[in-house]
Amino acid sequence: MNLRPDPGEYMKTQGDRVSSYLASVFADNEEPAVLFEAMNYSLLSPGKRLRPVLCLAAARTFGVDEQTVLPAAAAIEMLHAYSLIHDDLPAMDDDDLRRGRPTNHKVYGEATAILAGDGLLTFAFEQLAKPLAVDPARQLRMLHVLARAGGPYGMVGGQQADILGERQAGSAQQLQFIHAHKTAALIEASVEIGALFAELGEDKLSALRTFGNQIGLAFQIKDDLLDVVGDPEKMGKSTGADEKLDKLTYPRLLGIEQTDHMLNEVWQSALTALDDAQIDAPLLVALADFVVRRNS
Amino acid sequence: MNLRPDPGEYMKTQGDRVSSYLASVFADNEEPAVLFEAMNYSLLSPGKRLRPVLCLAAARTFGVDEQTVLPAAAAIEMLHAYSLIHDDLPAMDDDDLRRGRPTNHKVYGEATAILAGDGLLTFAFEQLAKPLAVDPARQLRMLHVLARAGGPYGMVGGQQADILGERQAGSAQQLQFIHAHKTAALIEASVEIGALFAELGEDKLSALRTFGNQIGLAFQIKDDLLDVVGDPEKMGKSTGADEKLDKLTYPRLLGIEQTDHMLNEVWQSALTALDDAQIDAPLLVALADFVVRRNS
Repeated sequence: MNLRPDPGEYMKTQGDRVSSYLASVFADNEEPAVLFEAMNYSLLSPGKRLRPVLCLAAARTFGVDEQTVLPAAAAIEMLHAYSLIHDDLPAMDDDDLRRGRPTNHKVYGEATAILAGDGLLTFAFEQLAKPLAVDPARQLRMLHVLARAGGPYGMVGGQQADILGERQAGSAQQLQFIHAHKTAALIEASVEIGALFAELGEDKLSALRTFGNQIGLAFQIKDDLLDVVGDPEKMGKSTGADEKLDKLTYPRLLGIEQTDHMLNEVWQSALTALDDAQIDAPLLVALADFVVRRNS
Repeated sequence: MNLRPDPGEYMKTQGDRVSSYLASVFADNEEPAVLFEAMNYSLLSPGKRLRPVLCLAAARTFGVDEQTVLPAAAAIEMLHAYSLIHDDLPAMDDDDLRRGRPTNHKVYGEATAILAGDGLLTFAFEQLAKPLAVDPARQLRMLHVLARAGGPYGMVGGQQADILGERQAGSAQQLQFIHAHKTAALIEASVEIGALFAELGEDKLSALRTFGNQIGLAFQIKDDLLDVVGDPEKMGKSTGADEKLDKLTYPRLLGIEQTDHMLNEVWQSALTALDDAQIDAPLLVALADFVVRRNS
């Protein structure tokens, strides 16, 4: 196995693999039909599959085949898809467009969108609790990691803070809380869950958590930058959306130059974590680099 | 241990025990404060704790101490509390009152209520994935059972069908689907999760699932009856609420007499399941009987 493939190619190949897997999760004739249609609408919407691909890459780095990890990676994407549906709701960010298509509630109405989110969130745990080729105690730990990242101490807490931060002056500390919980927590969990498929010691797992957390922050900082300077056509959503909502972002708080500087610092700290634990992970680093240098 | 205690007393004692446990789950100083306050508002609201108590009683029936099961029972109540918050939302049933108090979104607003529900749902799985005094493979199965009961093939599917059923003529088949998914699934899961703490064979587990499912249906049929004939002061919510929403219920569909008859049939089928598997479960039966004969 070549550990230095082209990251864009790995992302594309494995992302497609995740998408195919996701497309096979729910049978065609399930009832209530509209619920499963609404869940699939968001789950199968075109996307990079960044989180599941990072999960696969983390396992691959330590010699575990992607096929073994695929069901767990799919669970992560389900949880991510739920979070987008709920974030877009009228009571939340009230977004009409997501990945270039109308948001879930615009197509299916608010009640069904709430339920499609609840359904994907709950099914993510059903999916991760199914028999996997891994020690049950490790699998329990994966479930704990995913729930922790998704829940009140993770993404839900981050979204709450984000909503409270709208139309407020806001501080760098607040923004750090939001990004760490809303975005970095699940990216960190994706790397950790992949790594849990291998028999790593706690020191290496801890380093990989730090790496995941820091590239998660880098990803979000980059996202904030693209919202200011990005090309709306490439991004498939309206840019300037954060400003419209008076969302707290680093570019608004610090300016673009300082934000670029911070992005670089966070990126370095991700690399340092791996170096300190003597982890050689060219695939993970190449993917993270690819994501942080993206233009959309 | 006396296996034939007064069911009302067992419900009260163990319900209080569950409530005390739940009150200790989230620390006082967690951030964002309003999120944890909103989660606790619903989670700690006075209630019978029927589901967790059934879970404890199922384990007790096979000699497992309640203390061992308490964390799992608490996870079930968290999932139940989330479902009430989301069901009450303006986009769903639009209820103002729950257990005699203003509903979550009436107090905290819609965005926070959605997030409090998401937080409790996700934390339920974190809670159930924590180390427990049980074989990890069995614990994984508990997580699968809870997720299945809560998700698109369970409660979420039932709520979707319920919403679709409003303001429609509706059939007994539809109503059966709604009750089985929205209510019976989690009560069945509560009994099964309790039973999974004991080393039972698959035949006994299957019988206990049937028992749980049938008493879950009985509970819901009783609830529908009380909504028509119950005393609003005792129930802590407005009666006739189902009719206001044009909800499909058995009393509307079949009349009160036929509904009483059906309740009795379901109850008998619960008992038969235990008898056929030669399960002697006086505590579970007494509790179920207590719940089905309740007047509020």
